[in-house]
Amino acid sequence: MSTKVDPIAFLNGLRATRDFTADPVPDAALADILEVVRRSGSAMNLQPWHVVVVRDRAMLARLGAIGGNCGHVAKAPLALALIMDGKVEQFDTYDEGRLSERIMLAAEAHGLGSCIGWYGDPADAAAAKAALAVPQDRTFRTIISIGTPAPQAPSTASSPIRRKTLAEIVSHEQFGA
Amino acid sequence: MSTKVDPIAFLNGLRATRDFTADPVPDAALADILEVVRRSGSAMNLQPWHVVVVRDRAMLARLGAIGGNCGHVAKAPLALALIMDGKVEQFDTYDEGRLSERIMLAAEAHGLGSCIGWYGDPADAAAAKAALAVPQDRTFRTIISIGTPAPQAPSTASSPIRRKTLAEIVSHEQFGA
Repeated sequence: MSTKVDPIAFLNGLRATRDFTADPVPDAALADILEVVRRSGSAMNLQPWHVVVVRDRAMLARLGAIGGNCGHVAKAPLALALIMDGKVEQFDTYDEGRLSERIMLAAEAHGLGSCIGWYGDPADAAAAKAALAVPQDRTFRTIISIGTPAPQAPSTASSPIRRKTLAEIVSHEQFGA
Repeated sequence: MSTKVDPIAFLNGLRATRDFTADPVPDAALADILEVVRRSGSAMNLQPWHVVVVRDRAMLARLGAIGGNCGHVAKAPLALALIMDGKVEQFDTYDEGRLSERIMLAAEAHGLGSCIGWYGDPADAAAAKAALAVPQDRTFRTIISIGTPAPQAPSTASSPIRRKTLAEIVSHEQFGA
């Protein structure tokens, strides 16, 4: 069960969490997150994804040690590895973004924090694929760590984040207008 | 003001809407949607986006006539054109997906329907950029129509959508396990 929220405040409240307590992610929360995954929209309804649920501490440490920005995975009780079908690169990447946002929001619905890790370097991606036995023809770049935010975890809801102003990012009727 | 919701049901309730009534999108709803855009997360917090708000009926008709899957734009009272910075293709596409999902959810928070249009063909993308005076070095592929769902609009919340089963899309600890 998730608590009722104002949906706009819910969307605006999402922040990345990079440090977690040792508490496991409750099974009911994981079930909800996976159902949100299952119901996600995709280009031409291809649903070009597969998710590997990782809870083994040694594997989380191994995945967190690959790449420069995935250290948070080693601190999390759970991570979801997003394996994309690898058929249409543009759709895959776009749908990977849509799916990632939903996963983070589904975690937030249960009071859990999350953070996106990205194996951008091909060697890192290859190492990550080997760790999870992902077939060569699939794409694996994104891993999302999930857990209870550590007290005073960096980049949680209370911390300020610089965002551009509306004037910088919005035009009306024509670009720049 | 948006009504309180169960956030998991809110996420699972999102559907594409391809037909709209003539009702305009209320200014307060548009303001909320643009604030959600502004607060969206992005790779390295680059915020690599700019949004053009289109309400001019002639322009909506013009944009809806470009490409094979954007007819819904011509039926909508409003569309948001997502203009990406065009610096790092992979980040752009991934963040475009994250942003699109948030926009659709912010519309849903106000009881509005939405649909993603995609100018996948380079000639279509060029025509769309010309229509909105988008500089050549930016990327413009995604346009999201927003409005009040028409009665019995196809693909609204009550219609069934085929989704893969959890067994098809979820493994534990290793791919395929």
